[in-house]
Amino acid sequence: MKFLANLLAVPLLLLPAQAQVFTFTHDEMLKYTSHNPFGRFEDGRPKVPDAILAKVKGLSAEEVWAVLPGGGFHNQYEGNFRILHPNRKLVGRAVTAQFMPARPDVADIMEADAKGKGLRDNGNQRVLDLLKPGDVLVVDLFGKIEEGTIVGDNLAAYIYAVTGTGLVVDGAIRDLEGIQPLDMSVYFRGAHPTPIRNVMLTGINVPIRIGGATVMPGDVVFGDSEGVYFIPPQMVKQVVDKADETHIHDEWTQAKIKTGKYKSTDIYPSPRDPALKKEYEEYKKAKLAQQ
Amino acid sequence: MKFLANLLAVPLLLLPAQAQVFTFTHDEMLKYTSHNPFGRFEDGRPKVPDAILAKVKGLSAEEVWAVLPGGGFHNQYEGNFRILHPNRKLVGRAVTAQFMPARPDVADIMEADAKGKGLRDNGNQRVLDLLKPGDVLVVDLFGKIEEGTIVGDNLAAYIYAVTGTGLVVDGAIRDLEGIQPLDMSVYFRGAHPTPIRNVMLTGINVPIRIGGATVMPGDVVFGDSEGVYFIPPQMVKQVVDKADETHIHDEWTQAKIKTGKYKSTDIYPSPRDPALKKEYEEYKKAKLAQQ
Amino acid sequence: MKFLANLLAVPLLLLPAQAQVFTFTHDEMLKYTSHNPFGRFEDGRPKVPDAILAKVKGLSAEEVWAVLPGGGFHNQYEGNFRILHPNRKLVGRAVTAQFMPARPDVADIMEADAKGKGLRDNGNQRVLDLLKPGDVLVVDLFGKIEEGTIVGDNLAAYIYAVTGTGLVVDGAIRDLEGIQPLDMSVYFRGAHPTPIRNVMLTGINVPIRIGGATVMPGDVVFGDSEGVYFIPPQMVKQVVDKADETHIHDEWTQAKIKTGKYKSTDIYPSPRDPALKKEYEEYKKAKLAQQ
Amino acid sequence: MKFLANLLAVPLLLLPAQAQVFTFTHDEMLKYTSHNPFGRFEDGRPKVPDAILAKVKGLSAEEVWAVLPGGGFHNQYEGNFRILHPNRKLVGRAVTAQFMPARPDVADIMEADAKGKGLRDNGNQRVLDLLKPGDVLVVDLFGKIEEGTIVGDNLAAYIYAVTGTGLVVDGAIRDLEGIQPLDMSVYFRGAHPTPIRNVMLTGINVPIRIGGATVMPGDVVFGDSEGVYFIPPQMVKQVVDKADETHIHDEWTQAKIKTGKYKSTDIYPSPRDPALKKEYEEYKKAKLAQQ
Amino acid sequence: MKFLANLLAVPLLLLPAQAQVFTFTHDEMLKYTSHNPFGRFEDGRPKVPDAILAKVKGLSAEEVWAVLPGGGFHNQYEGNFRILHPNRKLVGRAVTAQFMPARPDVADIMEADAKGKGLRDNGNQRVLDLLKPGDVLVVDLFGKIEEGTIVGDNLAAYIYAVTGTGLVVDGAIRDLEGIQPLDMSVYFRGAHPTPIRNVMLTGINVPIRIGGATVMPGDVVFGDSEGVYFIPPQMVKQVVDKADETHIHDEWTQAKIKTGKYKSTDIYPSPRDPALKKEYEEYKKAKLAQQ
Amino acid sequence: MKFLANLLAVPLLLLPAQAQVFTFTHDEMLKYTSHNPFGRFEDGRPKVPDAILAKVKGLSAEEVWAVLPGGGFHNQYEGNFRILHPNRKLVGRAVTAQFMPARPDVADIMEADAKGKGLRDNGNQRVLDLLKPGDVLVVDLFGKIEEGTIVGDNLAAYIYAVTGTGLVVDGAIRDLEGIQPLDMSVYFRGAHPTPIRNVMLTGINVPIRIGGATVMPGDVVFGDSEGVYFIPPQMVKQVVDKADETHIHDEWTQAKIKTGKYKSTDIYPSPRDPALKKEYEEYKKAKLAQQ
Repeated sequence: MKFLANLLAVPLLLLPAQAQVFTFTHDEMLKYTSHNPFGRFEDGRPKVPDAILAKVKGLSAEEVWAVLPGGGFHNQYEGNFRILHPNRKLVGRAVTAQFMPARPDVADIMEADAKGKGLRDNGNQRVLDLLKPGDVLVVDLFGKIEEGTIVGDNLAAYIYAVTGTGLVVDGAIRDLEGIQPLDMSVYFRGAHPTPIRNVMLTGINVPIRIGGATVMPGDVVFGDSEGVYFIPPQMVKQVVDKADETHIHDEWTQAKIKTGKYKSTDIYPSPRDPALKKEYEEYKKAKLAQQ
Repeated sequence: MKFLANLLAVPLLLLPAQAQVFTFTHDEMLKYTSHNPFGRFEDGRPKVPDAILAKVKGLSAEEVWAVLPGGGFHNQYEGNFRILHPNRKLVGRAVTAQFMPARPDVADIMEADAKGKGLRDNGNQRVLDLLKPGDVLVVDLFGKIEEGTIVGDNLAAYIYAVTGTGLVVDGAIRDLEGIQPLDMSVYFRGAHPTPIRNVMLTGINVPIRIGGATVMPGDVVFGDSEGVYFIPPQMVKQVVDKADETHIHDEWTQAKIKTGKYKSTDIYPSPRDPALKKEYEEYKKAKLAQQ
Repeated sequence: MKFLANLLAVPLLLLPAQAQVFTFTHDEMLKYTSHNPFGRFEDGRPKVPDAILAKVKGLSAEEVWAVLPGGGFHNQYEGNFRILHPNRKLVGRAVTAQFMPARPDVADIMEADAKGKGLRDNGNQRVLDLLKPGDVLVVDLFGKIEEGTIVGDNLAAYIYAVTGTGLVVDGAIRDLEGIQPLDMSVYFRGAHPTPIRNVMLTGINVPIRIGGATVMPGDVVFGDSEGVYFIPPQMVKQVVDKADETHIHDEWTQAKIKTGKYKSTDIYPSPRDPALKKEYEEYKKAKLAQQ
Repeated sequence: MKFLANLLAVPLLLLPAQAQVFTFTHDEMLKYTSHNPFGRFEDGRPKVPDAILAKVKGLSAEEVWAVLPGGGFHNQYEGNFRILHPNRKLVGRAVTAQFMPARPDVADIMEADAKGKGLRDNGNQRVLDLLKPGDVLVVDLFGKIEEGTIVGDNLAAYIYAVTGTGLVVDGAIRDLEGIQPLDMSVYFRGAHPTPIRNVMLTGINVPIRIGGATVMPGDVVFGDSEGVYFIPPQMVKQVVDKADETHIHDEWTQAKIKTGKYKSTDIYPSPRDPALKKEYEEYKKAKLAQQ
Repeated sequence: MKFLANLLAVPLLLLPAQAQVFTFTHDEMLKYTSHNPFGRFEDGRPKVPDAILAKVKGLSAEEVWAVLPGGGFHNQYEGNFRILHPNRKLVGRAVTAQFMPARPDVADIMEADAKGKGLRDNGNQRVLDLLKPGDVLVVDLFGKIEEGTIVGDNLAAYIYAVTGTGLVVDGAIRDLEGIQPLDMSVYFRGAHPTPIRNVMLTGINVPIRIGGATVMPGDVVFGDSEGVYFIPPQMVKQVVDKADETHIHDEWTQAKIKTGKYKSTDIYPSPRDPALKKEYEEYKKAKLAQQ
Repeated sequence: MKFLANLLAVPLLLLPAQAQVFTFTHDEMLKYTSHNPFGRFEDGRPKVPDAILAKVKGLSAEEVWAVLPGGGFHNQYEGNFRILHPNRKLVGRAVTAQFMPARPDVADIMEADAKGKGLRDNGNQRVLDLLKPGDVLVVDLFGKIEEGTIVGDNLAAYIYAVTGTGLVVDGAIRDLEGIQPLDMSVYFRGAHPTPIRNVMLTGINVPIRIGGATVMPGDVVFGDSEGVYFIPPQMVKQVVDKADETHIHDEWTQAKIKTGKYKSTDIYPSPRDPALKKEYEEYKKAKLAQQ
């Protein structure tokens, strides 16, 4: 009965989004993420496979950044976060949400829409209801701290229970102490005791801006102790492949450094002496062959 | 041949918008501005009449703010601008534009769209082509200064020639010296010699955020030496009406102050003494009757 | 001989305060803290009992904030601190101190006063001499970092030895490395090697401002990994009582979340389905009965 | 009937202050301003004579600063203001007011006090009622902009009508456009349309902090296009006297500069060549003799 | 006796510089400014001719920036200044000075050097003694405001008397009111009453950093109401030549805009229609021929 | 063959420096560090002996700062760093490097120089080639974060392998995650994925500015969890000697504090009671005798 299931699934998935100002039709989602080489969710959002996400988890930031600018992607990184567990990597597929300062005229229309669809009136939770395993919620709250708290400890626990990943918010969280014990990764601008207020949820799964980065639904989110990277699906394979080579290069370079026999410019960024250069090329070839 | 002209006009007007990620269909524009009590442009954007705009020009910020919060509109003001001519008021109908940090995957799709419609590839100018007399361009450039310059002196002159009003940009302008002699009102965050770069125009005539304010297409923009107010069309009449009363109150209060006979708390915010109170009520009644 | 002891105790306690510009007479202290339902110290400062402080130690920030705004207390929290041991809670009774930029004319008068009372000329230590077990010193040093260091490691050790709690300073500390090994909680804006200079101690145990919060002597200080809360004595009982309920709510909600059977809006902030609602109400009743 | 007038005047003057947490008794005012060499107001506030204020009006900032640090007064200047009319000097006697974030427990007690004395419930106006010709209101609003607006155009007009001077506020003003036409001097941190809210008036005519400066009631306020200086009464005469000498020095130095015959180090800060030195000393002696 | 004069002039000119840590020998000055196509001062500093400076005075910032990035010069602009007379252009040849936080060990050695050469001990004035007509003093005071005041009104008057131009300082000035009446251009970060202190003059006429720009001695300084541009001598001619073309383009474009017949993208940045394009090219050719 | 080795060593050491704008000749290095009481490296840089560095490692910041201001050194501390391992001390001899925003005219001359000397074209690595055991690289990158990354994990590993110490940079690092596992101490302003770009290396082993501190080559770098101190070689012995006394004072004071028998002003900063004072003096004498 997969056919019927799909029929039912689609409205359920799309309803909440349709109660927002900004959302994509299925066609628009396909159009704006048309470079995605992988499968998709029912709403069209790119679904980078779990196997690839697992590989991304093993990458370093250097390996991610080694590829993105070359592909013309200069605006896929944002730092300046407070990070709940800096030593835990955050990897998953972006679900995006955009908030704006509340206006009753616009908010009322959206709430009427939502009510018509049987949705409760908690704007910030509607997007939570959409989350799936492997998703990472990425929220534009325009840097609001006071009354800009996307979740407290209960809803943070919900996010972690459903996704197994974490949260990126250009805004705040509540109940830091209650969230700390959770194993989840959270990137946030600040913590404040006030509940979220005076904002409205204007977009779900549309392009959003997080600081200097533009995030698309379905991007692979990669967070480390430095900040967060948003990798377009079509770049992920290249990132993973190139990483092997970078890894070999670093291994060889650091081994040479440890000998104490070389000046920095002798071996980095590439060996200077022809003999060393050859040695490195052979090492790389051999290593790549083993992969 | 007005009929044919209209037929032609509509596509011309809407095409540029359709080359952006975020735009409203005619229906959406009507839905999200459904409280608008006035007429509309062909694309559905509210068109507060010129006669009312003329009245707004005579208002003070105090008179604007006296009404908005009472209607639940707390997020319709933004300050912290540099202001080209602080003593010139800026009044007009908002045309909104939203930029985001560039991503080649999304930008390419929008450019292909635009090319298909015979548009030139100058993203920031597409929205300029839409401007009409009485419009005020309001641009979200997320506070970008370097390479965040929406116009230089040539395009500023274009905006002023077409609209007769001015510009609000959460970003920068170029060629400040060339813009200065123009009589137009410009609210901007900074000036920089670099041309705009590394951004993409993602929305036209959709809700945008300017600092702490949410701006809708068709809002009445009111700029003074303090900052900019965005008045929803449905609030404009109330603002104008209430202003008369505020004006009478201030006139009476300041006249009393000038007598030097009263302590501040005797007369402000309202007269304390029953006799004075009565005097004021009668003065107000008489004055309102004259209007 | 308790009568005589009190006679002696009062001057000893009040002398240092009397050498400051701002201090409360015994009557003023009673007047401005007249809502305090608990006992008081000799100088009139509210003394929330140790047993209640022990309960406060078990609270979460959420439980504190669940009550304060409802009582009209919106300005009892301050974040943006550097925190010495973020995982240690800070709980105690506020002793407040206010500093201002030094003026020799005012400072000389205060010092003459102090000398006349046999006090040493170390302004910042006078308030330290007042500390008692369970007190938390809260200091307004107007955000001064360089030459705004309230204590170094020796005096920090003194504070901890006497109070067993910690310190909140809108200013700096010295000798961070020497303070780190102490188990005490310290909330500070920065660390600097310079000693405190060019300031004068203007108030002891009077209302002070710490960022956006107003602190009264005798407030219960509650510091966690997010920031510091200042709970008026008259609110403490309500906070503690309400916390039990919040605790039960969170326990039930998180248990439901872990089942993985509910959308976020199904159960939070309250269960949506009537059956679930009833289940929760019964759970709560049973749990409260056990307390 | 001057005796009776005084009897009546005192309570009228002191009542409002007594409704605040911080105020001085008549004795405390005398004690903390005991260096004042001039007369006093009924409440004890130093009253630097009008004739001296007139001389201060002719000074430059350099002439003010030439004396204060030498007297140990390093914290009597604050910049970083927006200035309404930078080319108008502000000179007058400080009336100080201190606000803090509101707490209902403290605010209620003060309001009850005030009501008991027949005062209206507009905290920020109580201090306005105290103003006299030649006073300058100096307000600590802890840098609050939104809802930190001490006056709008009506009350600004009141201040100017009563004092003939202006206003210094570490906070905001409302209705900038309505205030601009007034000839008064206003030093403020920002302008905002919101009325003042969520604060309480805690002190009148007590020491307050404005940025890095400590201000006492009765200080001579001196504002120019750079910022504001707070001159203790006991320093005013010395400032005025020294200014004559500085003026002669600058006149002579600038005349020499205009000859184009000297290197900078030849004549500044003092002439280097013995003959020039002598010439200058004789010039100064002659000029001082003329005064 | 010009030969002898030169012999004497050289030591006089170079002595002050030699008392600093950083200075160029004559050879180094030639080496690091070897692209300079114009004459030089005795110390080797490039001397862009007065006739060219006069042309630069007629340029707009747009015309300057139209050329520099194309030559690889991306770091020749700095904004974020307070500007004394925004409507006066500043044009001249850079004399650079670098200050650093004082260290007695280094400062003593420089002072001993200076004393040995008969120089006075006013570090900041030594560089003033070097100034010549048409020079612009450019000072790196690392953004210091308090005690970072390069000149007050006397020395500002000196600079203006000698150079006829102005001053750029990444630091502060004193006596703003005394400087205001001077016709000179001053770009500064802030104004403060304190004299310069706790710094040492470490370099004269060496490369310095002003915010994001690197300035070389002999660069043409161009200041307008936006900020300051530092044009390398070898780029000046190209800037001036290209400006004519830009000027013609803007003239033509703005004339077209004024007709009200074109959309922005029809004519800017270049005419779109082949006929218009041709018209423009012919206009440009004719105009250039007239020059 | 030490003679020949030296002959070879000198050019090797000095070459890289000579490719920079700012460098010292051997004579200049001696002149500007003439107070150095210890030996020197071949290029004249002071070489504080390893044995003394070992003692410095045992110091506290308080002990360092107890001496420097007394010697007139007020600008030898900088905070506001992110610190890789706050609990690891950083101690070593400063090797300084200064970067400025790139200018092709200056950069090309330096690169031509370098190429002529057989150096590779990686500006930032040239200074790395100079490092020796016990050195600490101190880099002025003027606070640049994006494209201001002095090293990534490979070169960080190189620095640690060669020096065994760490790095101070007024700029950024790359690959924070790859650097974290290294035991080295790193003080930095931020982390960013972009490689270093648009800057040029202008000085090696010359005075540089790190925030508010002036650093000389050969200074002893002392970093703790608060920030970094730069101790001139001639002050090191005094610092180490005085530390013993400070240590004894703290030991005694803290022992007294633990007794709980004293008020803070009784024993700090020095004992008040004559008997206690005597006890302390005897304790100190005995302890110093043991050293």
